[in-house]
Amino acid sequence: MSLGDHVLALDIGGTKLAAGVVGETGDVRSFVRTPTRVGEGPDAVVARLLDLGREALTAAGCAAADMAAVGIGCGGPLDPATGRVHGPPGLPGWDDVPIVDLVRSAYARPVFLENDATAAVLGEYRHGPWGDVRHMLYLTVSTGVGGGVILDGRLHTGAAGNGGEFGHVIIDWNGRVCGCGQRGCIEAYASGSSIARRAAEALATGEASSMREVPAVTAETVSAHAGRGDPLARRLWDETTAALGRAVAVMINVVEPELVILGGGVTRAGDALLLPVRHAALSQAMRPAGAAARVELSSHGDAVGVVGAAASAFHHLGESQ
Amino acid sequence: MSLGDHVLALDIGGTKLAAGVVGETGDVRSFVRTPTRVGEGPDAVVARLLDLGREALTAAGCAAADMAAVGIGCGGPLDPATGRVHGPPGLPGWDDVPIVDLVRSAYARPVFLENDATAAVLGEYRHGPWGDVRHMLYLTVSTGVGGGVILDGRLHTGAAGNGGEFGHVIIDWNGRVCGCGQRGCIEAYASGSSIARRAAEALATGEASSMREVPAVTAETVSAHAGRGDPLARRLWDETTAALGRAVAVMINVVEPELVILGGGVTRAGDALLLPVRHAALSQAMRPAGAAARVELSSHGDAVGVVGAAASAFHHLGESQ
Repeated sequence: MSLGDHVLALDIGGTKLAAGVVGETGDVRSFVRTPTRVGEGPDAVVARLLDLGREALTAAGCAAADMAAVGIGCGGPLDPATGRVHGPPGLPGWDDVPIVDLVRSAYARPVFLENDATAAVLGEYRHGPWGDVRHMLYLTVSTGVGGGVILDGRLHTGAAGNGGEFGHVIIDWNGRVCGCGQRGCIEAYASGSSIARRAAEALATGEASSMREVPAVTAETVSAHAGRGDPLARRLWDETTAALGRAVAVMINVVEPELVILGGGVTRAGDALLLPVRHAALSQAMRPAGAAARVELSSHGDAVGVVGAAASAFHHLGESQ
Repeated sequence: MSLGDHVLALDIGGTKLAAGVVGETGDVRSFVRTPTRVGEGPDAVVARLLDLGREALTAAGCAAADMAAVGIGCGGPLDPATGRVHGPPGLPGWDDVPIVDLVRSAYARPVFLENDATAAVLGEYRHGPWGDVRHMLYLTVSTGVGGGVILDGRLHTGAAGNGGEFGHVIIDWNGRVCGCGQRGCIEAYASGSSIARRAAEALATGEASSMREVPAVTAETVSAHAGRGDPLARRLWDETTAALGRAVAVMINVVEPELVILGGGVTRAGDALLLPVRHAALSQAMRPAGAAARVELSSHGDAVGVVGAAASAFHHLGESQ
């Protein structure tokens, strides 16, 4: 079987690793994932990532040598040119990790590194069911909040590859302190870890809530209990979706995209997230940009990371030809 | 004298009209301006604009027939394709004004209409002393707040020409109500009219201030009295520059430009505006994008409107060839 038109895609997240064999048309031939462990350093994570990659190859019935390349998606900051990851907030201890060299040594294939949200927007642009869209934003709402940007059918990554930092669109300059050191960034409200932290703070005040029975409250706990009518969870979730909606409205005002896609772990809440965020964003953005834009969930679900990393690898392969 | 490589540029603002004859290299051969009058409707403004255009032609020693085209810059919303202006907040009564038809009838030349901030960023990109810059944002801080965007050396105007609405980047979702209906937009803090309104509100509380002696307090009053040490004016001005700085940081996070240019009437305050906005923006933007970006004042001063409208006309002439 020839698999020269396939790549191995690796997705390094703050709470999970994923790998898959993906074709040039976005077809996912295998997809495997595993959670990361608290306190695990980069060496252990990379070792497990390489094992997971081999598992994905086996599941697709092929070997590394069959792959056109390996694509890696990871939270930034990172440098695609040097192949190094520079201490993403979601990956403690990852200071200056030469991930591309490590992966190339293991598989002996060309390796490309990309910001995960940049990779995701490429995946959605190339393989999503979105029709004729030239301007597209991708907002990942995960352990952190990040973004990817397609303008006029081309990836926009900024002057040095650090554009699309949607996590640091602010909603309240007097608001919550963010991991970046500033106040009121959307990441301080709507990332998975911020939702969990806000819930823990509210529970610590002694307010009644069905979430008290849960040993470790996560963003998923909050959305689930909100759905079951718990008033505290409802309030936290409504604040989360209102914050996201307001930030998406700002992005629409700045860029005027045709489409904003929401992805990442927190969006597993589905319509409970999408519908209020869409309503807030489109009603609060300026007319006519707000009236014309669409807000949708990622078409690739949990596999968006590997589809994106693969699309990014094919993108770089195309550029290097 | 052949002036086929020149255009007549018209700049319609909330508080002033300007006109000039401008060459393809950005050389301003004539520049005339006049304030608009409160309560003046579109018919009267257009008549005065056409007179001002004739004055600019005379000052440059030429006639409309010598012009390659006429470029018009105006606050949005407007539609460059139909040549109509759709009720900009700074121009009361301008609902659906066919400005391109009116100007073409008067001068019998091709006429191009562009959002004033879009025109300004084109003018800065083509004719500013900025060196090799691929990604540039222009923030106009005037009667309102607007923006223009150059990405990868190309104008980005959004899906339908409404991108770059930097006035509606928010800083506080619980903050001041903006003309757009939302809360906390930067325009509600830093536009010339908002600065004046905030000053009037503060003075109405009875707080002592040297600004009390001024019959009609404007943004210029606030910056001037802040410079002379009046505590209330100082507080208002500091809030203005802090708000602008925070919004510029958000824009840098989203786009990662190499350069952000500040222009418009409020920037006549010079370093009193530039230095605190630059410091706030670059220290609050994410690294490394914030560390690498520059924040500067427009290189064309009050003439930025006509230089921009001219650059836009040449841009459209180039596209139509």
